[in-house]
Amino acid sequence: MQILKNDLLLRTLRGEPTSRVPVWMMRQAGRYLPDYRRLKEKYSFFERCQTPELAAEITIQPVEQVGVDAAIIFSDILVVPQAMGMEVQMIEGKGPLLPDPIKSARDLGRLIMPDPEEKLGYVFDALKLTKSRLDGRVPLIGFAGAPWTLLCYMVQGKGSKTFDEAKAFCYTQPAMAHRLLQMLTDTTIAYLKGQARAGADVLQIFDSWGGLLGPEDFEQFSLRYIRQIVAAIKEEALTIIFAKGAWHSLEGMAATGAHGLGIDWCIRPEMARQLAGPTVVLQGNFDPAKLLSPVEVIRREVDVMLDAFGGQHHIANLGHGILPEVPVDHARAFVEAVKNHVLREDHVL
Amino acid sequence: MQILKNDLLLRTLRGEPTSRVPVWMMRQAGRYLPDYRRLKEKYSFFERCQTPELAAEITIQPVEQVGVDAAIIFSDILVVPQAMGMEVQMIEGKGPLLPDPIKSARDLGRLIMPDPEEKLGYVFDALKLTKSRLDGRVPLIGFAGAPWTLLCYMVQGKGSKTFDEAKAFCYTQPAMAHRLLQMLTDTTIAYLKGQARAGADVLQIFDSWGGLLGPEDFEQFSLRYIRQIVAAIKEEALTIIFAKGAWHSLEGMAATGAHGLGIDWCIRPEMARQLAGPTVVLQGNFDPAKLLSPVEVIRREVDVMLDAFGGQHHIANLGHGILPEVPVDHARAFVEAVKNHVLREDHVL
Repeated sequence: MQILKNDLLLRTLRGEPTSRVPVWMMRQAGRYLPDYRRLKEKYSFFERCQTPELAAEITIQPVEQVGVDAAIIFSDILVVPQAMGMEVQMIEGKGPLLPDPIKSARDLGRLIMPDPEEKLGYVFDALKLTKSRLDGRVPLIGFAGAPWTLLCYMVQGKGSKTFDEAKAFCYTQPAMAHRLLQMLTDTTIAYLKGQARAGADVLQIFDSWGGLLGPEDFEQFSLRYIRQIVAAIKEEALTIIFAKGAWHSLEGMAATGAHGLGIDWCIRPEMARQLAGPTVVLQGNFDPAKLLSPVEVIRREVDVMLDAFGGQHHIANLGHGILPEVPVDHARAFVEAVKNHVLREDHVL
Repeated sequence: MQILKNDLLLRTLRGEPTSRVPVWMMRQAGRYLPDYRRLKEKYSFFERCQTPELAAEITIQPVEQVGVDAAIIFSDILVVPQAMGMEVQMIEGKGPLLPDPIKSARDLGRLIMPDPEEKLGYVFDALKLTKSRLDGRVPLIGFAGAPWTLLCYMVQGKGSKTFDEAKAFCYTQPAMAHRLLQMLTDTTIAYLKGQARAGADVLQIFDSWGGLLGPEDFEQFSLRYIRQIVAAIKEEALTIIFAKGAWHSLEGMAATGAHGLGIDWCIRPEMARQLAGPTVVLQGNFDPAKLLSPVEVIRREVDVMLDAFGGQHHIANLGHGILPEVPVDHARAFVEAVKNHVLREDHVL
């Protein structure tokens, strides 16, 4: 096993002491980077995902250009429904489109339980290549969507503010919803295990739409499946759950045994700590829109955030993905402000 | 002054004992009602708002057809930016469009401080006509958008999941943002006072996008203006603040002296009560998508909700507006389940 030069993220997730808080940004490999936009002009979204050379290059860009403490593999949560046989299109400026959404038992019957090596081997190849190219500079994060968030897209067929059709599917046909969620859970477990074998040090589960469910429905339709996934993978990699907006279930998420929990900017770090308990690592929670502020405001607000988390059991990150219109300098200012915060503290001591 | 036959809502907001919890639904005058859809085919959105006969008819439909304990005037929060000189279009199936959004000091300079009687007199006329037609059956609710939510539309120019441009406007040009928010606050105070004079018993402030701001920014860009509005109107009418998603500031909202606070379905009633304190009335918080469930599920879930609120200082409502695709029978089942809940309790006693 390779020795990492920067293992801040792993040490933090293991609860070990570190010299400073690690920092990375959700969607850090993406559209705010000019080098990414150049590749985007030449290759379609799925060409970029499915070509290990391209995915590795995109994954490493923010490590070299922004100075983050971790790489996260360039991919998309919808590769799982795609591997299960659904058509997924990425419409520029609009987001994902699944032209044949799941509405009935017959639609469900069309889905396959994929062999990850066969259908998602390109992700594993991209992880292996990235790992080799990173050459121990920083850890590598793999990821998958939570079953509930995947169901949202598979039933609604596209993005939505409220995913009413997906919710109505769960409320009116719960048995079918649970069948689909279990299929997604089993596929995701095999997929994430494959990512760990391919070299991912950390696995993050993205439940982007968890916050659309009330606490009881979140337990029913999301957390019970996340719990299965964490139980199955937590011996093979460090795990982080990010269920945006589902602050009400931080206690339940901590009880899964996940090493870290992501939080968004709408909950105070003190409150999140109180709800999640004293030991689990919290990841977040800078308002992504605030990266559009002047650089001096970003620096000041990063200090406020870091002080609120208290410098322990914390991974600095945004509270959601970085916005495409953020200037690279601002992203860099965010990362550097985290790195400098500790230096200033040391100076005071 | 007219004696109301059903004053449950007013008694509850005043903290007086009632025989049961009152119930109404946000957006209850709207697209799920076939009679509304018929008017929608014949008249444009602003014709319906600006013609007191039509607005009154639409306002009263749910009182007669669904049995709610209050009427809420049919209108839109964007009539205020419109009265201030902005063009507002309602695009069918897409939502509002403001083709000349606020980007600069020059755009701000184009706005006027309207005389509400002159520019929004049609709302006052609609309230007076509705009040007379209601003939004391139930109380009448007036409303306005919170300054922050109005700023969102005025700067972004259209609906958005995240209103990044509106947030960036506040973060990069805070002086201009505060100038706009103060103009909106002053206009809204005059507008709501006019609604009270025209017969509104209760005034609700809708901060639909309050939940996009973190706690500190919510205080800065939203709550400090809501506070001014509540202080100015609370002697003239009972007041309710509904800042969707801003659960983290329930304590601050209660401290404004508002009589009621709306909450959405993503916070447990017990937690909301703990944060808001023991006396303020809580309004909510049924998941609107759950009205798509079978009627027996709706009945069961209403009972769960009412028990969680404990039957005191509570107005039963949805956690956001009713969805257009909800069958009228389901809306009626929701209202009747609230009414029947108390009867069952009495029966047990």
